[in-house]
Amino acid sequence: MDVKTALAGQRIELPSWAFGNSGTRFKVFAQRGVPRTPHEKIADAATVHRFTGVAPTVALHIPWDRVADYAELTKHAADLGVGIGAINANVFQDDDYVLGSVCAPDPRVRRKAVDHLLECVDIMDATGSRDLKLWFADGTNYPGQDSIRERQDRLAEALAEVYRRLGDHQRILLEYKLFEPAFYTMDVPDWGTAFAHCLELGPRAQVVVDTGHHAPGTNIEFIVAVLLRAGRLGGFDLNSRFYADDDLMAGAADPFQLFRIVHEVVSAGALASDVALMLDQCHNVEPKIPGQIRSVMNVQEATAKALLVDSEALAAAQRAGDVLGANAVLMDAYNTDVRPLLAEVREEMGLHPDPMRAYAASGYGERIAAERVGGRQAGWGA
Amino acid sequence: MDVKTALAGQRIELPSWAFGNSGTRFKVFAQRGVPRTPHEKIADAATVHRFTGVAPTVALHIPWDRVADYAELTKHAADLGVGIGAINANVFQDDDYVLGSVCAPDPRVRRKAVDHLLECVDIMDATGSRDLKLWFADGTNYPGQDSIRERQDRLAEALAEVYRRLGDHQRILLEYKLFEPAFYTMDVPDWGTAFAHCLELGPRAQVVVDTGHHAPGTNIEFIVAVLLRAGRLGGFDLNSRFYADDDLMAGAADPFQLFRIVHEVVSAGALASDVALMLDQCHNVEPKIPGQIRSVMNVQEATAKALLVDSEALAAAQRAGDVLGANAVLMDAYNTDVRPLLAEVREEMGLHPDPMRAYAASGYGERIAAERVGGRQAGWGA
Amino acid sequence: MDVKTALAGQRIELPSWAFGNSGTRFKVFAQRGVPRTPHEKIADAATVHRFTGVAPTVALHIPWDRVADYAELTKHAADLGVGIGAINANVFQDDDYVLGSVCAPDPRVRRKAVDHLLECVDIMDATGSRDLKLWFADGTNYPGQDSIRERQDRLAEALAEVYRRLGDHQRILLEYKLFEPAFYTMDVPDWGTAFAHCLELGPRAQVVVDTGHHAPGTNIEFIVAVLLRAGRLGGFDLNSRFYADDDLMAGAADPFQLFRIVHEVVSAGALASDVALMLDQCHNVEPKIPGQIRSVMNVQEATAKALLVDSEALAAAQRAGDVLGANAVLMDAYNTDVRPLLAEVREEMGLHPDPMRAYAASGYGERIAAERVGGRQAGWGA
Amino acid sequence: MDVKTALAGQRIELPSWAFGNSGTRFKVFAQRGVPRTPHEKIADAATVHRFTGVAPTVALHIPWDRVADYAELTKHAADLGVGIGAINANVFQDDDYVLGSVCAPDPRVRRKAVDHLLECVDIMDATGSRDLKLWFADGTNYPGQDSIRERQDRLAEALAEVYRRLGDHQRILLEYKLFEPAFYTMDVPDWGTAFAHCLELGPRAQVVVDTGHHAPGTNIEFIVAVLLRAGRLGGFDLNSRFYADDDLMAGAADPFQLFRIVHEVVSAGALASDVALMLDQCHNVEPKIPGQIRSVMNVQEATAKALLVDSEALAAAQRAGDVLGANAVLMDAYNTDVRPLLAEVREEMGLHPDPMRAYAASGYGERIAAERVGGRQAGWGA
Repeated sequence: MDVKTALAGQRIELPSWAFGNSGTRFKVFAQRGVPRTPHEKIADAATVHRFTGVAPTVALHIPWDRVADYAELTKHAADLGVGIGAINANVFQDDDYVLGSVCAPDPRVRRKAVDHLLECVDIMDATGSRDLKLWFADGTNYPGQDSIRERQDRLAEALAEVYRRLGDHQRILLEYKLFEPAFYTMDVPDWGTAFAHCLELGPRAQVVVDTGHHAPGTNIEFIVAVLLRAGRLGGFDLNSRFYADDDLMAGAADPFQLFRIVHEVVSAGALASDVALMLDQCHNVEPKIPGQIRSVMNVQEATAKALLVDSEALAAAQRAGDVLGANAVLMDAYNTDVRPLLAEVREEMGLHPDPMRAYAASGYGERIAAERVGGRQAGWGA
Repeated sequence: MDVKTALAGQRIELPSWAFGNSGTRFKVFAQRGVPRTPHEKIADAATVHRFTGVAPTVALHIPWDRVADYAELTKHAADLGVGIGAINANVFQDDDYVLGSVCAPDPRVRRKAVDHLLECVDIMDATGSRDLKLWFADGTNYPGQDSIRERQDRLAEALAEVYRRLGDHQRILLEYKLFEPAFYTMDVPDWGTAFAHCLELGPRAQVVVDTGHHAPGTNIEFIVAVLLRAGRLGGFDLNSRFYADDDLMAGAADPFQLFRIVHEVVSAGALASDVALMLDQCHNVEPKIPGQIRSVMNVQEATAKALLVDSEALAAAQRAGDVLGANAVLMDAYNTDVRPLLAEVREEMGLHPDPMRAYAASGYGERIAAERVGGRQAGWGA
Repeated sequence: MDVKTALAGQRIELPSWAFGNSGTRFKVFAQRGVPRTPHEKIADAATVHRFTGVAPTVALHIPWDRVADYAELTKHAADLGVGIGAINANVFQDDDYVLGSVCAPDPRVRRKAVDHLLECVDIMDATGSRDLKLWFADGTNYPGQDSIRERQDRLAEALAEVYRRLGDHQRILLEYKLFEPAFYTMDVPDWGTAFAHCLELGPRAQVVVDTGHHAPGTNIEFIVAVLLRAGRLGGFDLNSRFYADDDLMAGAADPFQLFRIVHEVVSAGALASDVALMLDQCHNVEPKIPGQIRSVMNVQEATAKALLVDSEALAAAQRAGDVLGANAVLMDAYNTDVRPLLAEVREEMGLHPDPMRAYAASGYGERIAAERVGGRQAGWGA
Repeated sequence: MDVKTALAGQRIELPSWAFGNSGTRFKVFAQRGVPRTPHEKIADAATVHRFTGVAPTVALHIPWDRVADYAELTKHAADLGVGIGAINANVFQDDDYVLGSVCAPDPRVRRKAVDHLLECVDIMDATGSRDLKLWFADGTNYPGQDSIRERQDRLAEALAEVYRRLGDHQRILLEYKLFEPAFYTMDVPDWGTAFAHCLELGPRAQVVVDTGHHAPGTNIEFIVAVLLRAGRLGGFDLNSRFYADDDLMAGAADPFQLFRIVHEVVSAGALASDVALMLDQCHNVEPKIPGQIRSVMNVQEATAKALLVDSEALAAAQRAGDVLGANAVLMDAYNTDVRPLLAEVREEMGLHPDPMRAYAASGYGERIAAERVGGRQAGWGA
């Protein structure tokens, strides 16, 4: 496919929660203009799409984005030019979940958690969402606290019930994470565990890779390649990190790593596939809408570079065992300045070539800061 | 010194904030009976001391423990059998501190932060505290966000002003931390940076080692040994972790590491010195008072083992280059079950030999759960 | 099962290569008395068994232990009271393998590597070994150097050919490793990749967990529990580490971790199963035979503690959500000094209660140092 | 300074050992044409300089590069257009050093090690070298093996003796490393330890930062900034890594990190200073001379980008607290394709714009492969 066409057709999903306040356990710094409602979050996401042209869906987080009428919310989104993306289930913010949700030792708690997951599928039906994204904060803090094996059994049972409830065109995207909020075991700590559960469930269960959820030194693009080979890569939660699950803007900490990850997707022919590219970030100290725009642009730049890799020259050098030659082919693409190319793509899409500047000039940020006074700003409600 | 005497004379400082609610950015799970006021926190700390006999001081966190009358608070503590320990300054929970406190680019913010630190010295004067514990959440999230060098200059300037304000018997204990809440640079990320600033300040500035604040693989006992050799170890914030700054109970994640750390203190003759042993923990999923008692006991057990090391045999094996022999001397002490010894020490101190059981039997937990109804539970206020 | 019976019946396999010289890329320090031949390595391993009673097999490394007559070598072992254990294939020490073995881009190299693996199965037939242990040093050092996906395809093809060659009672044990000697990708970097290949192969392909082959922070006992639940844990390469694949004596760096790992094996009822407990260590600075004896004892101590866990009390506390109570049950066992119990077990087995002392008194070390003069000491031949 | 002038004047030092064979403890793969003598290593280094124009010195490693006549070796280098750079002392490859060199428990071993260091200063006198680079492999593998404190005392004593021997224009560059070859403690594990010893020694002792010697997550540019602020940054050992001390080509693993490091040097005005930029790499699987050329080019590209940072715009955004704006200024420079600029610089220096292509066309590689037959190839001699 033509590089420009591929870039113009890329789809990056935005997270509704990126527009709300976020922070660390030490402090959530409030920002002016932050949305108070799911509708306002969607309006902000639509604004990102208006200036980038490649962010046509917004993921919801339930219960943070719970509304009475999902059809109305979906229409609200459509009116603003975007659609509802993945439904992210949240079973970690109720006092009942102190020892876990679907893995908790108390069967009443597990039932409550599964019911919430089933409610999320109802919401998917109402919004037309394809993906149920499941991240479990479940785990333990102390050796001996609970049985690792029994928690796996409980997890499998819960997932099976939810899987059975899925419609034909719906998927479970199962996420894994090394640690936090649990500090001894997480019940789905790595891709292997997520993969094993997906295999048990069936073809509509797939693994989602959050780029901030790995142990130090983990080669993420390797995992991506292996999951693609096995047909089990459902998508990404993109962000970047220097340390742990820092949730910084995608491409901000290690742009070369982002390029390598996208290169695996491109070279597997999976760029325009069901592999969902979703952002999952926290703009703790920077303004949120520009933070999202910048992140989208960083993903675009990584994608453009990946599309510019001379795959034939690369394969030839690889087959010849030419270590430096093969590396050079990859680096030639990475070292290219793709910003002019992306500016052209945007202009051909009828967009301003510089989304950051265009957004700044739009006055949207000042307007929401002035208008969104009173009410309760959206946040994680921790 | 006699092992039992040393154990009976050990002093472990408790953190007032360990008795309040705590959690992660995802959720703070509330517990019944949690204190609403500094007075109630001190009452809980005094309870830990009542059953362990080795926790006679409680550290305060300002502004979390701000009161109108510190002399009254000190008397309240004394009436309960404990004293006020270190004053922990908190310059990270005001919206002004979004880009840092003493290192922030805005001089008004820096002034505000320094004024808070000076207020903490006032509180030290009022409470008779010796130690001003300084941990700065300052840092940056993105490359380029601020000048690393200029932030160091601002930090040095602020520390110098505070140092000049100290009384003759007061110290600055400067803490370092690899990451969180800042995710690109922390302004005091490692012991080397803290040490360099302490050297600039003078002899009453010392480094405090929080056992959860290091990069993976860091050998903490090495740092302890080096700081002791340089006369710059001010104390510890004890806790344990499997991943990052997990703030689990001391000794829960790696009891052998805790033993090795205390062994360095003991072998440098610094057990009964100004090296402060302070707990700094979060009991997110376990009850807080028993969590503190258990932590104190874990530190005692590590200390007892360290005191049992046959230092002459160890030195002889080391000098002889007998790798396995020297290791065996250390392991012999570590592998000893010191619980009977500590039970004896407690009985000789007039305490119940099993503090956990004695606390459970006391009914204190049930009483505070019943009494502390209404009001606002203490927490981090993030 | 009775604790003493379980301890007396434990089986720990020794690696022939632990008795040869080893070191780092910086230096291999030679020791006096090191074996020159596979026969001498087996004699040393038999000596470890003679004093510990629980190390009745020795693993071979091919080609390091290649001999003309494996039946004769097996008889030599039997005469010394031990048997031949796993056959470890080595496809990383030929100049042909610079870019990999079974994953190399050159089909001639891959053929050579597979032929070596098939030779190892021949050796298994000749020695009666059950396990073919496969660790591949394959990987790449630079991004782009080779195709991650194609290397997986080549790996799968090679494994399938070897699997087909296995006899009914033979197994493939597939090992994984995060890094070293390859520094960008390893072709089997984690348990998930090993697990996926084993699933493709069939029931006689199982994962082996080397305790030094993980990213920092990885919870190894979790992996053990998950693999046991899936019926895919083939065994362990036991050693310990503070940093990377340090190959220190098992239990030396984190004895609590070793205990937790063995606890998972015990609590799954898998202690006396086909889950092989193998040592894989390098005694770079300590004498090798005592290093092995000490390692065996460390594994025994961890096992004794795991057997002492009050599993009913543990399960009750877990089900009740009693975090501190459940942790305390585990810690009670860990904090027990099991050395007297193991001394009893040894005496009941007709052994000296202290294998280290008995070995030292035997004069074996001095004898081999005097006798093994001339020839070429065994090593890795790197 | 003008960007092109700065780039043309940059000085990158090559390590003689990069041209010899290297590998891991598993295997050293030999390459054709590898030097047999220090003279041949210098010839190869001079070749790198001939094509890049910015690598005018070559560092020696003693005893690997020991010769009878250093004046003659220096003249040989000068005849080839290069000079002798830092002298790297090697006190880790003698059987005597199994328990350390200057920190060993045996005073005879320490004396031998110090004598070697003094010999290195003699060689500096003979070659005109300014820098004595000290990296100590010293450390311990097991807790208790030796006294951390006493080893620090021994280290300090040895360093003091060597420091006193230095001429007025000579420096000690003290290197630190987290681990390997020692696996429990290293005697100089981090910059703080190196810094503390340098402070004790005096102004001509400075810290050298090897980019591969840190714990995971360490922010290297922070250390660089702090050492520059303290006037104690002596130089760099440049290489790159994904995991540990992988010694890959500089800029190969994380080019953005390399850029950030050089940015700190540039923004402190230290590019054309005594801060030595030295490569320290192992070309295990790629050809060595092209590997060095590529590394030099990678450093040049990072430097060019760092020089292109709009420092005034950066400072303005930083002072204004404009997080995204300041980050964007930095990223604008990083995202620039500087290869055309460097091609121009080379042409203005009278060089081919593409050193890799020019080297390939020169036939040098084929010539040395044909000529250097017989003899013993240089390597680490581990």
